[in-house]
Amino acid sequence: MFSVNTVWDNIDKVRGSGPVVLSITNYVVMNSTANALLSAGASPIMAHAKEELEELITIAGSLVLNIGTLSTGWIDSMRFAASIAAAKYKPVVLDPVGAGASRLRTETSISLLEEGCVSLVRGNASEIMALAGVGAMTRGVDSCNDSNEAETSAKTLARKYQCAVAVSGCVDLITDGETVYNITGGSDYMPLVTGMGCIATAICGAHLAICEDSFAAAVSGMGCMAAAGGLAKVASNGPGTFAVHFIDALHNVTENDITRLVEVRSV
Amino acid sequence: MFSVNTVWDNIDKVRGSGPVVLSITNYVVMNSTANALLSAGASPIMAHAKEELEELITIAGSLVLNIGTLSTGWIDSMRFAASIAAAKYKPVVLDPVGAGASRLRTETSISLLEEGCVSLVRGNASEIMALAGVGAMTRGVDSCNDSNEAETSAKTLARKYQCAVAVSGCVDLITDGETVYNITGGSDYMPLVTGMGCIATAICGAHLAICEDSFAAAVSGMGCMAAAGGLAKVASNGPGTFAVHFIDALHNVTENDITRLVEVRSV
Amino acid sequence: MFSVNTVWDNIDKVRGSGPVVLSITNYVVMNSTANALLSAGASPIMAHAKEELEELITIAGSLVLNIGTLSTGWIDSMRFAASIAAAKYKPVVLDPVGAGASRLRTETSISLLEEGCVSLVRGNASEIMALAGVGAMTRGVDSCNDSNEAETSAKTLARKYQCAVAVSGCVDLITDGETVYNITGGSDYMPLVTGMGCIATAICGAHLAICEDSFAAAVSGMGCMAAAGGLAKVASNGPGTFAVHFIDALHNVTENDITRLVEVRSV
Repeated sequence: MFSVNTVWDNIDKVRGSGPVVLSITNYVVMNSTANALLSAGASPIMAHAKEELEELITIAGSLVLNIGTLSTGWIDSMRFAASIAAAKYKPVVLDPVGAGASRLRTETSISLLEEGCVSLVRGNASEIMALAGVGAMTRGVDSCNDSNEAETSAKTLARKYQCAVAVSGCVDLITDGETVYNITGGSDYMPLVTGMGCIATAICGAHLAICEDSFAAAVSGMGCMAAAGGLAKVASNGPGTFAVHFIDALHNVTENDITRLVEVRSV
Repeated sequence: MFSVNTVWDNIDKVRGSGPVVLSITNYVVMNSTANALLSAGASPIMAHAKEELEELITIAGSLVLNIGTLSTGWIDSMRFAASIAAAKYKPVVLDPVGAGASRLRTETSISLLEEGCVSLVRGNASEIMALAGVGAMTRGVDSCNDSNEAETSAKTLARKYQCAVAVSGCVDLITDGETVYNITGGSDYMPLVTGMGCIATAICGAHLAICEDSFAAAVSGMGCMAAAGGLAKVASNGPGTFAVHFIDALHNVTENDITRLVEVRSV
Repeated sequence: MFSVNTVWDNIDKVRGSGPVVLSITNYVVMNSTANALLSAGASPIMAHAKEELEELITIAGSLVLNIGTLSTGWIDSMRFAASIAAAKYKPVVLDPVGAGASRLRTETSISLLEEGCVSLVRGNASEIMALAGVGAMTRGVDSCNDSNEAETSAKTLARKYQCAVAVSGCVDLITDGETVYNITGGSDYMPLVTGMGCIATAICGAHLAICEDSFAAAVSGMGCMAAAGGLAKVASNGPGTFAVHFIDALHNVTENDITRLVEVRSV
């Protein structure tokens, strides 16, 4: 069903239509996710004041919720935004940063999922497993060793909350609860740059805004990350230069780069 | 009256005197505007706690107010800081980020202008038009098509609040309500880097601190941006490398670069 | 006692063990300090909600407190985190950003020191002097001229609060109140990049997590900064490229680079 063509088609649509992506996100990645969205052709808005969320969601094509530097006020804003997005049929992507590392993060993520308005969850293996009630995160850094557990957890989560789930890792895994796709590409530098997962979530948010199918949006968003990562690593000499070239790559990536650098396969 | 000499003179003065610029600004651009100020030779302070604003304004040469990620507490801090700045005769530059996109942003901007302490407003066309009561922003991204409307709005605003107004765009427009200057230069990458407008505002803040005439400071601040943008684009391969080279360029730009890369003309 | 070998040994240990460093830090440097920690081989967590601090400190190897963009709520979180860290015997490094520039910053820093849980203070000369009750910061930018005053202040502070003190400058100064070490290296670009001091504090935090002796951790943390700074400047054309290459350098720096670029001497 999905292929590298899905990836390119949606990258091209984002560039062509410049969707507005509203993010209620963490302090660490506000700048880098805004830059990633702009380079990919989207139009980012960062906001959190309840007084303006309804107006901003109205002009947005999708909503990104990211719990990376959580506090009570921001949880309220996220819940409020999620309910407006549901009422206005705007797709929502959730990034459960650090779920499993604290009850606050796990419970906030689950409460947002329970409200039923999340179209896509994008996390690393430990976060997705924590949300599915399996294991506990002890580090914040992902590993490649738990792919079977991660797949089971992702499917469980997708079925329970009727959403797509994307798990970042050496090989990305995307599922709607039934079908599973793997995406290969990217670079070893990606886990060494802060917020690379948050950028993946934001890019998936841009793809959600131009694509009715959240499973397809997750595949193409993660495929876009894999292509840009592969393109950037050639020019890089470490995580610092990689982060910069990655932003260039989101702007420059071509259909040929996708074909050359990314593998999308059903498993 | 103003020319590329005005631009160079003020760049040179900022480098020579290292003015302290206090910013109450948005989360997205705190890092990039601080880096831009340092590279330009100024000394940035970022703060928002009311308990310390009076002491910090005392040592500052100017105050930057930027409403990019607004919330109630920050509006209070901005109002409080603006009143202290007025009492201490420190110039204030306002960046009405997203005015027109929400009532909160439009009304906060106007209420700060109504207090009469703003020396300079720096925004894009849609923001300036929104503050003048014309049109409504629907995107956050500027366009080059509305220059006549933008000019009328900028003049209206400048006269009403007795301040200078700088409108960023393909061609920048600066006015005191009577005279209008256009500045040409920069790079197509500038709208693809988040906070480039906020950096323009911060650089104008540095120029305000060393220049009694806010109209001149706006011209030289925007001229500095145009020169650095022109210098940076040559070395860049996308918005990521551009953002990095732009910071270098603020540090490296010479009088010859200004002459070569920037046009300042009265219209 | 300490030498360039101390620096390399601890850099190597950080890379080998990947300590979790929990930071309650300022908005300006959240992204850059997280990237620095990742590049150095550590695992950063940024958080401030009291609801999750105990769980996160439990999995952390050290705690970084940085007062750069202070407000009441964050002071509460820092105090709370400091008390938990003390109870769990986790080392704490304090960055008194802007101490001396406002009573809020000076008093908050001193109150954290008074609680007796700080293992290391890392600041510039004016901040350390302000905490020792000498002089007043008027700029935020450090100078090289006050090294005698800074040394006396650092020793006073170290003895009073039984901690190590690291003073960044052209030549870094580290003391436990008795012995003083100087570290030479780095680059003239370092004061032109925002948060370079905050990055030094974060890197010292990573070294604290793998090294029981806070004096040794301060020497090796500052030595790591000096080496990375020296390595980065060769490839740089201004403060923008320097900041990027500095992050690469934290990842790439070798034992040979340390020997070549850093001098550690007892004074």
